[in-house]
Amino acid sequence: MTKMSKVFQHSLRVIYGDTDMMGVVYYANYLRYFEAARTEVLREQGLSYVDFEKSGHAMPVAEANVRYHASATYDDLLHVETRIDKIGGSSIVLSYRISRDSDKVELCTGMTRHACVDQSGKVVKWPHWFKEKLNGS
Amino acid sequence: MTKMSKVFQHSLRVIYGDTDMMGVVYYANYLRYFEAARTEVLREQGLSYVDFEKSGHAMPVAEANVRYHASATYDDLLHVETRIDKIGGSSIVLSYRISRDSDKVELCTGMTRHACVDQSGKVVKWPHWFKEKLNGS
Amino acid sequence: MTKMSKVFQHSLRVIYGDTDMMGVVYYANYLRYFEAARTEVLREQGLSYVDFEKSGHAMPVAEANVRYHASATYDDLLHVETRIDKIGGSSIVLSYRISRDSDKVELCTGMTRHACVDQSGKVVKWPHWFKEKLNGS
Amino acid sequence: MTKMSKVFQHSLRVIYGDTDMMGVVYYANYLRYFEAARTEVLREQGLSYVDFEKSGHAMPVAEANVRYHASATYDDLLHVETRIDKIGGSSIVLSYRISRDSDKVELCTGMTRHACVDQSGKVVKWPHWFKEKLNGS
Repeated sequence: MTKMSKVFQHSLRVIYGDTDMMGVVYYANYLRYFEAARTEVLREQGLSYVDFEKSGHAMPVAEANVRYHASATYDDLLHVETRIDKIGGSSIVLSYRISRDSDKVELCTGMTRHACVDQSGKVVKWPHWFKEKLNGS
Repeated sequence: MTKMSKVFQHSLRVIYGDTDMMGVVYYANYLRYFEAARTEVLREQGLSYVDFEKSGHAMPVAEANVRYHASATYDDLLHVETRIDKIGGSSIVLSYRISRDSDKVELCTGMTRHACVDQSGKVVKWPHWFKEKLNGS
Repeated sequence: MTKMSKVFQHSLRVIYGDTDMMGVVYYANYLRYFEAARTEVLREQGLSYVDFEKSGHAMPVAEANVRYHASATYDDLLHVETRIDKIGGSSIVLSYRISRDSDKVELCTGMTRHACVDQSGKVVKWPHWFKEKLNGS
Repeated sequence: MTKMSKVFQHSLRVIYGDTDMMGVVYYANYLRYFEAARTEVLREQGLSYVDFEKSGHAMPVAEANVRYHASATYDDLLHVETRIDKIGGSSIVLSYRISRDSDKVELCTGMTRHACVDQSGKVVKWPHWFKEKLNGS
């Protein structure tokens, strides 16, 4: 198990379709924002999730958690900070923190835990090349 | 080309996540409602889209149109009426009309045009068994 | 604080738009299913979330958690079992369990915690009439 | 009525949640992409849709059309070109063209027509300041 402290940054703009009639971002959409940020984490480590899938693997979400502290609304520019909390033999835990650009208010924090699976859906060890790059080596 | 007059009925409940900050259903979500209704049309004709895909075919949307007349909002019970407008050799045109249960107001009308394609994405003729059932024979 | 054991049932059909390229329901969409089930819990207790909002209140999500055990796919008929785990002075915790109709496999479990707020977003006590009905009295 | 030839550019990255089990972007999501591009058109003309709503107006979609030519998939970088086709007294028509960055393939074209309404939902003339800026003057 490896502890990494690097913080990955991703920015995105809230569209009208992300909001609900309370006038704020619908709670499920933060999981979409987490996913967008996750892809960029891989890219910054020189990894492509597309290539990972082509190698016969996938990393489905095993658990997701979100704590909502304040509301984002339409046209807000958001920053998602992502950390790789733990890389296990066949799992990974990422944590997220979303804040608003204009006033720096923390909107939500959360985590996702993923398993590494093969095409049959069986949990398998991370491919060596994938784990190496994830570890930033 | 075949003209059919049968009207298929599908009902659904608007969830909070379907609305936007204008307090009404976000315009893209009506295409989701059309899709749900489409699946039920096939089912009522004894067809399963899952089986259709297993036979190596797909019917991607080639065109979609929606005219918005009035707004649906959270918790509205909606009725989607679907008609098969045209069945061509390798295409199908469906039309939709969505109304609200409580006051019968017409909320939107629309259409989708689909092509029959094989697994390589090439446009092909409808499988015989599929077209027969679509035609209700 | 009150512990309730009643289980509320809600059924829904997975549409194509709920799936992702892994061929299964996208992880964020389970939070939409939870929400649909939640509305029905209120309705079965004689409550309407629309009326609750009209009374000047809202119950935004303060925390959400999902554990994904198996995958739902297109056209699956799903059952959502919802329980009211805790009703506090100004909060409520609901738990969910989603299973597939065809094989009864448990797909995911989860929870949402909500706060009762007024129109300014301030946390306030549940209206008396609301809490009474929630408690089933 | 005014004809404008300026082309507005907006780029976006397809996330996993935008795809469906056909492995491509779900057809309704292109309307989300149109909306994101639309907001940027306003911003580039010195307009903010947030301010427009604060002035007691909204511009709901009266009609939307999409023609799907080729498929976008996960992680594709897309370009949305938007044109203001017509500005009427109380309506606007925008057209869109989405292409993929990597191979410049045209994926879809479409249009949306909007009405200018006041807070009661009544169709009204565009506010003078809004129309002037839209016209780029």
